[in-house]
Amino acid sequence: MTTSFDLHAVKAMVFDTFGTVVDWRGSIIAEGNAYWTPVKGVNVDWGAFADSWRGKYGPNMNKVRTGELPWTKLDDLHRMALDDVLAEQNVSGLSEDDIHHLNFVWHRLNAWPDAPSGLARLKSRYIISPLSNGNLSLLTNMAKFAGLPWDCITSADLFQHYKPDPETYLGAAAILGLEPGQVMMTAAHTGDLEAAKKLGLRTAYVHRPHEGGPGRERTMPAQSDFDVVASDFRDMASKLGL
Amino acid sequence: MTTSFDLHAVKAMVFDTFGTVVDWRGSIIAEGNAYWTPVKGVNVDWGAFADSWRGKYGPNMNKVRTGELPWTKLDDLHRMALDDVLAEQNVSGLSEDDIHHLNFVWHRLNAWPDAPSGLARLKSRYIISPLSNGNLSLLTNMAKFAGLPWDCITSADLFQHYKPDPETYLGAAAILGLEPGQVMMTAAHTGDLEAAKKLGLRTAYVHRPHEGGPGRERTMPAQSDFDVVASDFRDMASKLGL
Repeated sequence: MTTSFDLHAVKAMVFDTFGTVVDWRGSIIAEGNAYWTPVKGVNVDWGAFADSWRGKYGPNMNKVRTGELPWTKLDDLHRMALDDVLAEQNVSGLSEDDIHHLNFVWHRLNAWPDAPSGLARLKSRYIISPLSNGNLSLLTNMAKFAGLPWDCITSADLFQHYKPDPETYLGAAAILGLEPGQVMMTAAHTGDLEAAKKLGLRTAYVHRPHEGGPGRERTMPAQSDFDVVASDFRDMASKLGL
Repeated sequence: MTTSFDLHAVKAMVFDTFGTVVDWRGSIIAEGNAYWTPVKGVNVDWGAFADSWRGKYGPNMNKVRTGELPWTKLDDLHRMALDDVLAEQNVSGLSEDDIHHLNFVWHRLNAWPDAPSGLARLKSRYIISPLSNGNLSLLTNMAKFAGLPWDCITSADLFQHYKPDPETYLGAAAILGLEPGQVMMTAAHTGDLEAAKKLGLRTAYVHRPHEGGPGRERTMPAQSDFDVVASDFRDMASKLGL
């Protein structure tokens, strides 16, 4: 064990999901190449398609955060962005049912290989829940699809705020009946962890160097930057003595 | 199969919990006799204690429903009622930590024997979630304690309304991204099912004749009263073709 705090004070681990638990980019590319290109004739570079789609995520959430848009769940932000991407990539001829189904690819993302078994080990001691900007129905469908053994779902739509707004981290602790220091935020993104740390949550970093695809490898932070720094969820479980 | 509707239109089953999935009365009696009497010297009739505690549930929720109390989660309503029951039963000498721990016996209720395996079968086709007046943290802790394989937790505190207020049934459908007719309310209590049915949800009755203890056996409704009428969750899974 390499941790420097009282593990037994932590009762729940909450997890960023896109990139941390599931491989959104690889999953979109895989479904695109297996279905949308051969069956529906969508001829695009699926890596570029996924990057463009995901690239509209931050700006669209900011419209909610600033009040330019009222509360809008992620499914609907994804759809607004998808309509733009389809236009930009000159994709036409998809039916409304097709576009709806493509939009819900975010409900059908594959877990990183270590996630189901690693999460099951973490679940043996902690409450485990996503703390994601995805909506509850997206995260619930994703869990069934990817085999994620969550105890419950704490999602942005419960709080009507997107991370890194404090209402999400503090709202998750409150609805779990816990103090912030009893909750450990887990993410592959240092900004998410820094926001949680400022509010008194514990932090666990998991390394997902290939989230962004080729040429965008990420370097691992120092072990001292967060309460736990792990190479994957199996390593995290081991570092927590599980 | 004895059902008369399109099973495949239903995407989620939501479950009343106290009495339907877990045996609240038997669990309180068991913990009382195993711990609170021999270890803490609480000499009461635990069946009468449980009945008195549970008896204050409806009136306290009504205070929230009428606005006499602001939104108050069930843990806190349980505590208000517990303080009254302890006084009525002349129990003294418990520390604040003890009383808090006793109040959380509602997080440590045992499943009816068929529930974990029956729910796992239902989960193979449907999203399964409690739709309970318990708060999310109570239901999450209970699921870990009792081995309930929920996909997510839809609880009164998400909606700040108690069943049978329509906001609970319709709120659960909405947050699951479903129409009311795609959701099947499941309960051992006909009033809960009737309220859901009026709002367009499908209904499944499960028989728990011994919920109320000796002398309070319940009779089974007619098969035609609800979409499914089952003797337990294994029978329900079989009746749904699972």
